Amino acid sequence: MKLATYKDGSRDGQLVVVSRDLSTAHYATGIAHRLQQVLDDWNFLAPQLQDLYEVLNQGKARHAFPFDPAQCMAPLPRAYQWADGSAYLNHVELVRKAHGAEVPKSFCTDPLMYQGGSDDFLGPCDDVRADVAHGVDFEAELAVITGDVPMGTPAEQALEGVRLIMLANDVSLRKLVASELEKGFGFVQSKPATAFSPVAVTPDELGSAWDSGRVHLTLQVSWNGRKVGMCEAGPEMTFHFGQLISHLCRTRNVRAGSIIGSGTVSNTDRTHGYGCILEKRALEAIQDGKASTDFMQVGDTVRIEMKGRDGQSVCGAIDQKVAAPR
Amino acid sequence: MKLATYKDGSRDGQLVVVSRDLSTAHYATGIAHRLQQVLDDWNFLAPQLQDLYEVLNQGKARHAFPFDPAQCMAPLPRAYQWADGSAYLNHVELVRKAHGAEVPKSFCTDPLMYQGGSDDFLGPCDDVRADVAHGVDFEAELAVITGDVPMGTPAEQALEGVRLIMLANDVSLRKLVASELEKGFGFVQSKPATAFSPVAVTPDELGSAWDSGRVHLTLQVSWNGRKVGMCEAGPEMTFHFGQLISHLCRTRNVRAGSIIGSGTVSNTDRTHGYGCILEKRALEAIQDGKASTDFMQVGDTVRIEMKGRDGQSVCGAIDQKVAAPR
Repeated sequence: MKLATYKDGSRDGQLVVVSRDLSTAHYATGIAHRLQQVLDDWNFLAPQLQDLYEVLNQGKARHAFPFDPAQCMAPLPRAYQWADGSAYLNHVELVRKAHGAEVPKSFCTDPLMYQGGSDDFLGPCDDVRADVAHGVDFEAELAVITGDVPMGTPAEQALEGVRLIMLANDVSLRKLVASELEKGFGFVQSKPATAFSPVAVTPDELGSAWDSGRVHLTLQVSWNGRKVGMCEAGPEMTFHFGQLISHLCRTRNVRAGSIIGSGTVSNTDRTHGYGCILEKRALEAIQDGKASTDFMQVGDTVRIEMKGRDGQSVCGAIDQKVAAPR
Repeated sequence: MKLATYKDGSRDGQLVVVSRDLSTAHYATGIAHRLQQVLDDWNFLAPQLQDLYEVLNQGKARHAFPFDPAQCMAPLPRAYQWADGSAYLNHVELVRKAHGAEVPKSFCTDPLMYQGGSDDFLGPCDDVRADVAHGVDFEAELAVITGDVPMGTPAEQALEGVRLIMLANDVSLRKLVASELEKGFGFVQSKPATAFSPVAVTPDELGSAWDSGRVHLTLQVSWNGRKVGMCEAGPEMTFHFGQLISHLCRTRNVRAGSIIGSGTVSNTDRTHGYGCILEKRALEAIQDGKASTDFMQVGDTVRIEMKGRDGQSVCGAIDQKVAAPR
């Protein structure tokens, strides 16, 4: 099934069920008002939402209305956890190579992951409000929302904790990263609010494209209307989502509603383009000695979308504009 | 006023108002069930809770019952944000000195802060479940819970965002820290679930001890029943809470219910003892060439408490035991 959260002026919005083709939606009122409620009590509430979803897909839902992604908040407008991995080692290698640094061997077995802020997510069409002097970059990613995963759960079992899949734009302020990481405690100011796709979907919506914790589909990225990335999300994902969740829950419980990100989707074959400007700049630095592509400017747009094997958009598109801070 | 969250089998527990002397409590039912609700709508709900608090203090609340800290979850059992500063530079200096590293000058103006997991907090008397081979340490800290603080709010104004004050035990797995920080993305596995005091209090409860964003009281720390720390929390707090919140909201909004920690309370005068074992070990390493005090073992206890100028416990005590993972 496909779920979204509609803006209603409240902090958590209103849960809606969205039809498979993303054409219509229906308020989930009567079942649950908020997505976190559903994640807290998945086994009881998810089947009821699934029933509504089926009726909606048959065109028989009484109060269906046209689905409008611009009315969406993030599926979880705020969450109790956002932990973002760097599951595509090619991304890590490329970025490091541009600075003349190698990738430690341990990175092939021990995933990079950072804990992000989760109190104020952006909807798919909300402006990215940031000072462009900080080097505003998009990062096209996949993310999952989990159920409860107890401390010490191994990867294969942790994978069963995946409840929903969505897309993310993990906005980064590149010019704040170096000084912040030098301090040694990870990202704070260099990672402003993250945006998510309008719709979060259960893994069965991907059919055979969801395989062993990886999504074997193409993540499309456009910058100012120009297609810059057609990144294959499956084969080069070094760590699958079960491994990422298992990494996170090694020493603590991961509770329902946690969001775990894949990191920038990245391919070694450069004809697939890029999922963040930093990769483009890294390639330029490696080839020409210096990066020539600038980061995003005020008014710039980014669009991130993923089509299923049937050609239909799976989660709808993230479609954002950069704006100055208020 | 003083607020706590009672265990009731649910994920978020039941909000209770606690009397000033921590002797009695009263369910806040009829006003709000959960603390996050109150933070989401502070101006409307807080005065109603304050009224109940005053009736409770007068001994006139109809359904008051004896307050039992062992029945408490963390005041916010899960939160949308937990960001922990290192506001006591003495702690940072000491830990670095033990490794022969100096503190960069920028650390005096740019606070260290890490983003922590906030989906699964521990109550004040819950066991710390961890593998003692990882070097289990306590960290005695202060923490505040904020209202909404918009992006770019300066320190003095950010301070007005403090809604509640409480104590924290920022449990650390010391033997996982070095390899994790080397990766460059901050703490994930080396910071298991954090515990908080039974009670969170509004700043007015501290009277004149709450001054310019600092708490001028003594944080008492006992390890296995032996007093090891009588740390002055006020004068050596390099960055006050307004500065910490302002640091966090530089590039993003900080939303209601965010928890911001002070880092381990630490004094240059060593007769005050220590708020974490790592400091004791650092001193040993500096003086004797090697650390002799071991980290916590299974069955070890830690107690963290702060008395007001009237000699009464302000937030109740964190009182935990180390246990093996389930």
